[in-house]
Amino acid sequence: MESNHLADYLKQRIRTVPDWPIAGVNFRDVTTLFNDPEAFRVMIEAFSLDCTRLAVDVIAAIDARGFIIGGALAYQLHKPFALVRKKGKLPYRTVSEDYTLEYGSATIEINEDACAAGQRVLLVDDLIATGGTLLAAAKLFQKIGAEVAGVAAIIDLPELGGSAKLRDAKLPVHALCAFSESE
Amino acid sequence: MESNHLADYLKQRIRTVPDWPIAGVNFRDVTTLFNDPEAFRVMIEAFSLDCTRLAVDVIAAIDARGFIIGGALAYQLHKPFALVRKKGKLPYRTVSEDYTLEYGSATIEINEDACAAGQRVLLVDDLIATGGTLLAAAKLFQKIGAEVAGVAAIIDLPELGGSAKLRDAKLPVHALCAFSESE
Repeated sequence: MESNHLADYLKQRIRTVPDWPIAGVNFRDVTTLFNDPEAFRVMIEAFSLDCTRLAVDVIAAIDARGFIIGGALAYQLHKPFALVRKKGKLPYRTVSEDYTLEYGSATIEINEDACAAGQRVLLVDDLIATGGTLLAAAKLFQKIGAEVAGVAAIIDLPELGGSAKLRDAKLPVHALCAFSESE
Repeated sequence: MESNHLADYLKQRIRTVPDWPIAGVNFRDVTTLFNDPEAFRVMIEAFSLDCTRLAVDVIAAIDARGFIIGGALAYQLHKPFALVRKKGKLPYRTVSEDYTLEYGSATIEINEDACAAGQRVLLVDDLIATGGTLLAAAKLFQKIGAEVAGVAAIIDLPELGGSAKLRDAKLPVHALCAFSESE
């Protein structure tokens, strides 16, 4: 499927929930894509092409919606899967990274053996908003000696600046579609 | 792979983390299975056989580790995927179910359109402990008119009573391996 046709195909199948989680925000609900086997297949095939192009060794996904995509992608490509989780959720030895949110801060972690030094990691999430979590995840993999090959997401919200911030950090970014706030 | 060989194969690849989350508990860490493409493939193939045997229409998984398995399984079988999440995480209209924990209670939700009435749902999680979340998830799908075809997990902890409780509720349960507390 040619790239802008793919974006239109997916956008038609994403549910917009108005005023969630707060008034005035249009939330892009990807559960309708996960519930649609053909749309799910199309997404995983598109991400698989990225992995080949970027010579990816390991699929890493962000808790929790990222796990749905990342699990399918790792299975399809027969690659190791690594978890990126909020602090306190991984039982084995971890490395952690703090990042700022609109109000306050958060901490994410990976296992210190999430991948081997030198391996090329693709970071997967459903959506790129401010990019804070994904940028912190990239730093975590760099801390354990891995190379972040790129960032893949279903949706980019370019007005929130995350994809630009990730590209400024020299990370190749591929989102399958984008929404403006007014859409 | 014959069933008890499969159990041994998986158990050898599951990391036990002592004294987590509290002293005296041996935590069974399945991240080592997700990090092993061959083990991941073996698990998904075993669950796929269950889905065929049970005539499953929809894969439903429990947030968050269940999403990794459920995403891969739904992709492999080309079936719809439905999310079971803690209260407040799903933006669209939901149905919810409270259940008791050792101390206090919790609430889980599914979207009211997570599947159609009459569809046969497989519930997927990484581990069966007390079974509280899985039993509440089964009730949620029954509330929206679906039939729960069965429960699939990587690990059963039979001494905690969850798998027995699920079978008492007439739910077929298939765990790929089991650990006793002392192992």
